[in-house]
Amino acid sequence: MASSLLSRQLALSLQHNLRLSAPGCRYVSKTATKSVVDFEYDAPSMKTEVPGPRSKELLKQLGEIQNVGAVHFFCNYDESRGNYLVDVDGNRMLDVYTQISSIPIGYNHPALMKVMANPHNLSSFINRPALGILPPENFAEKLNESLLSVAPSGMSRVQTMACGSCSNENAYKAMFIWYRNKERGHNIPSDEEVTSCMVNQSPGCPDLSILSFMGGFHGRTLGCLATTHSKAIHKLDIPSFDWPIAPFPKLKYPLDEFVRENAQEEARCLEEVEDLIEKWKKKGKPVAGIVIEPIQAEGGDNHASADFFIKLRNIATKHGAAFHVDEVQTGGGATGKFWAHEHWGMDDPAEIVSFSKKMLTGGYYHKDELQADKAYRIFNTWMGDPSKNLFLAEVLNVIQRESLLEEVTRSGKTLLQGLYALQAQYPHLLSSARGQGTFCAIDIRDDPTRNSLIMKARNKGVLLGGCGERSIRFRPALVFKEYHVHQFLNIFNDVLQEYK
Amino acid sequence: MASSLLSRQLALSLQHNLRLSAPGCRYVSKTATKSVVDFEYDAPSMKTEVPGPRSKELLKQLGEIQNVGAVHFFCNYDESRGNYLVDVDGNRMLDVYTQISSIPIGYNHPALMKVMANPHNLSSFINRPALGILPPENFAEKLNESLLSVAPSGMSRVQTMACGSCSNENAYKAMFIWYRNKERGHNIPSDEEVTSCMVNQSPGCPDLSILSFMGGFHGRTLGCLATTHSKAIHKLDIPSFDWPIAPFPKLKYPLDEFVRENAQEEARCLEEVEDLIEKWKKKGKPVAGIVIEPIQAEGGDNHASADFFIKLRNIATKHGAAFHVDEVQTGGGATGKFWAHEHWGMDDPAEIVSFSKKMLTGGYYHKDELQADKAYRIFNTWMGDPSKNLFLAEVLNVIQRESLLEEVTRSGKTLLQGLYALQAQYPHLLSSARGQGTFCAIDIRDDPTRNSLIMKARNKGVLLGGCGERSIRFRPALVFKEYHVHQFLNIFNDVLQEYK
Repeated sequence: MASSLLSRQLALSLQHNLRLSAPGCRYVSKTATKSVVDFEYDAPSMKTEVPGPRSKELLKQLGEIQNVGAVHFFCNYDESRGNYLVDVDGNRMLDVYTQISSIPIGYNHPALMKVMANPHNLSSFINRPALGILPPENFAEKLNESLLSVAPSGMSRVQTMACGSCSNENAYKAMFIWYRNKERGHNIPSDEEVTSCMVNQSPGCPDLSILSFMGGFHGRTLGCLATTHSKAIHKLDIPSFDWPIAPFPKLKYPLDEFVRENAQEEARCLEEVEDLIEKWKKKGKPVAGIVIEPIQAEGGDNHASADFFIKLRNIATKHGAAFHVDEVQTGGGATGKFWAHEHWGMDDPAEIVSFSKKMLTGGYYHKDELQADKAYRIFNTWMGDPSKNLFLAEVLNVIQRESLLEEVTRSGKTLLQGLYALQAQYPHLLSSARGQGTFCAIDIRDDPTRNSLIMKARNKGVLLGGCGERSIRFRPALVFKEYHVHQFLNIFNDVLQEYK
Repeated sequence: MASSLLSRQLALSLQHNLRLSAPGCRYVSKTATKSVVDFEYDAPSMKTEVPGPRSKELLKQLGEIQNVGAVHFFCNYDESRGNYLVDVDGNRMLDVYTQISSIPIGYNHPALMKVMANPHNLSSFINRPALGILPPENFAEKLNESLLSVAPSGMSRVQTMACGSCSNENAYKAMFIWYRNKERGHNIPSDEEVTSCMVNQSPGCPDLSILSFMGGFHGRTLGCLATTHSKAIHKLDIPSFDWPIAPFPKLKYPLDEFVRENAQEEARCLEEVEDLIEKWKKKGKPVAGIVIEPIQAEGGDNHASADFFIKLRNIATKHGAAFHVDEVQTGGGATGKFWAHEHWGMDDPAEIVSFSKKMLTGGYYHKDELQADKAYRIFNTWMGDPSKNLFLAEVLNVIQRESLLEEVTRSGKTLLQGLYALQAQYPHLLSSARGQGTFCAIDIRDDPTRNSLIMKARNKGVLLGGCGERSIRFRPALVFKEYHVHQFLNIFNDVLQEYK
């Protein structure tokens, strides 16, 4: 029960210094004592296989209501804390996946409890406004305190949305509107445009396109889905748009050992991008925008160099297309910088940067000229949720107060070194360890082995997620410390030993 | 401050019986004393024009961050209660628009305060899960208590989503998947389908269509937007799908005075639907689903008869298309039944019913066979938000406890009678009063008059919304009692007198 959580917090903090030392070194990884007072558990604790009997019972219940094919197990969120997710059978797991990368500072962080306890905040939860027409008094203030305090370089405008897909859908719309106004030379539609758009026809609904990349993932609503190319199951049977799809560089890891080959591969992809832009222009479906993730996440944690992104951004500009960086999964600090695109070192990285997940609210930042020129063009009933902005403001406080980006950089380095060591130890199983901050991944021999590794790790108390064809992605919260890295590496090593 | 609200609640309840009588009869409308103990104000109270100076100041601030062209004014949600919305300049307005029809039981309802105060609920707010993979222990239980307790006839399955657009996008996807599996005769895609879908091409991304209606509104993401045809500004410059668009009956009101003409008009539209289905089939873009609102809301509160919907549903079945009733705006009780389609009196009204707004969470109900056959086909990170389900469960309790559907029927009758009286009184200004429950509307002479009426009413303390080309739509909360109807009618009458 969350109520008792709060009362136990003090007791736990006091116990902290008396704590038993962390699980000892088992293979590659060293013992580490936790360096900060965390409101969480010390280690995983497993009581049953996962899913356990209670989860199985609930699965059956929920199966009467929904397709439960993707459900892993049922959770006791009241008892979960920090990096540890507790399930309904009393199993406590180190969570290195965090609800598909969407829990920024761990479970039940005391700072977020305080947001709930503050009576000033009550009405933000109870009275969800139509933000686009009737915002609350503190709306601009909260945006300034939260989203705008971490705005990407060159962007002082932000639009909130309810989720990642809506964020990208609306970002695409903003790019289309911007592009058409540019083509027209003004923003006054012709009568023909006004009439034809009502029946889905050009010129009112123009044949514009968004260029995306093979392996990319930008959401699952129909606009987004036309730019998503990570797995067939997402796209099968759903009508789509004839939009250009460029190859994403297939690089060799570690990147610094394959600089020349990787540069060639990136050059090949960039050439293809330019060819596609020309080709689609000739087709009469000009590219209004290019959308890309700084690291292709769902598609397999595929990296590219800063040089690649800089050149791509320049290609977009050269061809008059907007450049949209989708930071839904990469944003919010996991790469060691608040936005992954900051690693490129550009003052003017993009026209649009979209976000969701760890940011707790969806939305997108944009340059001034990408603002829709008229009311109700980028609009819906809720336009986000102010209660999420309250949580985000507090999350950003915690990130700053606890220097979590530095922490992520430190933990990430330890994690990646550990993965390198494991892959040297188990070359028949592991390859291509890679990452930025704690946003790391490693390839597994094949898909069945990957899946069985994830299951075995889970039963030993570590929750992992897959991505791409045969990768495991690491998506811990920003409070994942070196202590937790070692805990993970020790358990993962135990699992790998079973495959010897 | 919400904290003081709670403490003032008791005091207000006590004061209630001592309350001064409500504003007296001014023209068409009678005095009515409030019949229940409400936690709200007695009447509007206006201190400035709207927007007032503080709103204007905040508008300027927010204008630095977003397009504020649609912002009416800024609100003090802490001080708003029941049917009264308070703005930042201390103006208190009777809210007959309720955040575009999305506040079910008024502002700061004490029952919702209690949800926040219950420590058992804390972790649902703080730890937003990825519902599709790691649901909380009480997820099925809460769905049963809330959404499934009001499931439409013939539907025992529900999928939650974050907003109305996502609900419809995913409902369309469910229809496409269902349709293709039916076409195939099984659910195993060919290699060609798997390969071609990755690059947006048929047969993997088939040329299927959704038939929608002129004047319909189903959301603004690209899939939804292809079925939305209410206003050009929503669609202009956004690429779309070549999907069939049928005429929605243009009926004469009151419906029972124009039965014959209206039946002819409906027959014409139904014929057109069948023609379009045939035509799109020949085009190679068969209609997988038909989507329609029980009352076209955004498009101008256009009604059709139960007979029309029954015949339309049968046409869908005859042609093997799914029938999707979009209850995003009509659902949740405002028509006097929980779902507007219940007025049709059918046991098997649809394959899919989508919702959002007053339901506080988005989502859709569906028949068993519309459930996606495999995991991850209908999926996203959040798949809704359990904290919204908590509020919804409480809203449904309140609706039942306070017999709000009966209340809506009663208030709606009074409202519609009042509108009839006003339109008899001001025939040069008003026409076509219509409605079901409190889900009412009236046409105004022309668009500029409509807009000026809305502004004038606002300055006198009544908040209204427009829809269609020249209608005003009434979208009060379910706690809008006869008392409030009379209050509205009196003020509206005062406004209309200025146009004499």
